[in-house]
Amino acid sequence: MTADLKDTPIAILGAGLIGACWAALFVHHGATVRVWDPEPTALDKLAERMAGPSAQLQELEPQSVRSGTVSCHNKLDEVLDGAVLVQENAPENLGLKHALYARIEPLLASNAILASSTSALTWSELAPGLSNPDCLITAHPFNPPHLVPLVETFGIDAERLDRAEAIYRAAGRAPVRMNKDATGHIANRLSSALWREAVHMVAEGIADVAAIDAALVNGPGLRWSVIGAHMAYHLGGGEGGMAGYLAHLGPSQERRWASLGAPSLTPDVCSALVDGVMEEAAGRDIATLERQRDAALMALLKARQ
Amino acid sequence: MTADLKDTPIAILGAGLIGACWAALFVHHGATVRVWDPEPTALDKLAERMAGPSAQLQELEPQSVRSGTVSCHNKLDEVLDGAVLVQENAPENLGLKHALYARIEPLLASNAILASSTSALTWSELAPGLSNPDCLITAHPFNPPHLVPLVETFGIDAERLDRAEAIYRAAGRAPVRMNKDATGHIANRLSSALWREAVHMVAEGIADVAAIDAALVNGPGLRWSVIGAHMAYHLGGGEGGMAGYLAHLGPSQERRWASLGAPSLTPDVCSALVDGVMEEAAGRDIATLERQRDAALMALLKARQ
Repeated sequence: MTADLKDTPIAILGAGLIGACWAALFVHHGATVRVWDPEPTALDKLAERMAGPSAQLQELEPQSVRSGTVSCHNKLDEVLDGAVLVQENAPENLGLKHALYARIEPLLASNAILASSTSALTWSELAPGLSNPDCLITAHPFNPPHLVPLVETFGIDAERLDRAEAIYRAAGRAPVRMNKDATGHIANRLSSALWREAVHMVAEGIADVAAIDAALVNGPGLRWSVIGAHMAYHLGGGEGGMAGYLAHLGPSQERRWASLGAPSLTPDVCSALVDGVMEEAAGRDIATLERQRDAALMALLKARQ
Repeated sequence: MTADLKDTPIAILGAGLIGACWAALFVHHGATVRVWDPEPTALDKLAERMAGPSAQLQELEPQSVRSGTVSCHNKLDEVLDGAVLVQENAPENLGLKHALYARIEPLLASNAILASSTSALTWSELAPGLSNPDCLITAHPFNPPHLVPLVETFGIDAERLDRAEAIYRAAGRAPVRMNKDATGHIANRLSSALWREAVHMVAEGIADVAAIDAALVNGPGLRWSVIGAHMAYHLGGGEGGMAGYLAHLGPSQERRWASLGAPSLTPDVCSALVDGVMEEAAGRDIATLERQRDAALMALLKARQ
């Protein structure tokens, strides 16, 4: 798997947490990674930020010798020169990203792919920052990006999308291409939809925060780590599959949709969420919870291999 | 784990697929299981229906010697006599369940728990079928019930809920108690909410059925098999946790909720769903898809152990 990215020049823009995870991932798979950040302190912290993800990747895929290299730069031309993929992780501020793109565009190699990790913004919002947006794709990783395989892609140049997705696949990712731009891409739209109902159930007193999380982890979440939601309803239709399901239970599904909640994040609801999640955390701080999440994810990823 | 249910008398009402999975599960954990069904043909098929789940449980937990017993009955008094737990899996028809409860109630042991596996109905709808509904709980398993650990419970007698949940735990299940009755319990409400947005994205052409399923399985689904949705937003808030998330991103989350879809299952949408899932299935029939789902679930469950 490493061979594919051996010596591939990849630029990472932004040395924050997401940038550091991308850097660790590409280095682990053999790439020549150059990281740019306008803040010298961010570059100083890069090695420290990469250490944990690098160690986790080494544990997950020990066969991937860490043969790539990483270097830090505060000059854009140094990282963009010859880069085939430029993974942009600037703050989620449209003006800032547009300003950055204006500086990047003249320095890009002619076939380079400018891939934005943006979570909140869309391709259509980002594209006006470039005189020729063919080079731009959105490539949104899911947190933590070096462990969760999903990368959601969108762009208008199919050839660049193909090449970008080949790079992500070579880095062990699972790219999923969208046909149309949408705020929140696919995964965060699904997450928002599910969380809205989870918040509704807290607001209505149907179940506690911890109970809802336990139901998800031991029920649909577990199943959705194996089969998607559409496929689950296909199997829920018995021998008739999705067509049978829709014919027999479509009307009751529409009634259930109509009965789902539309909560507001009022002070009371926010308090219930904060109190509930603190009770669920049972004294574990964020760092501990993240460590436990990562360990559990790694066990599942090993089981999938 | 088996010791807990050794010689525990459990009645299963209904020898269909759900009843057979419950039977396999309880027998695997040592219980004395008596299965009732009004249809002799259903009882004839029980052993065949239990065979697959029993073999999967044996593979998952080989330390649990299959020391329980199972017997088939067409007389209610034979299965109810002395049963501490009566797991009811009758068809999802309120009149039919009420009629069955009227026959059951005089035959129940004084402390017996009547647990309905109902998916579509609520405790409040079922309770009027009994003169004293203290004995009734809903205990909804998630498909496939012998592999997915979740059992959602609700009732009004805390002591019976405690005892029922202890039995489910002894059978390797993860019971989750609701504070209030709700159609769809917790998990199917979450599933409906997520699927509504998944259907919306198909209807709007944002992504194909297979792409949405791949995004879920490789992204939020994988993560939700490890941490719940509330906890994921807690970790998404960085050091500020849920409180920090709500303070900084609560308003944008409310805007995203407002932008989620409310699709209808029109003929066009239904066609897109059926065509999309058939493309995703790529020639695999329902039985093959179920086998692959179960094998993947078992690998994850082993990794969790």
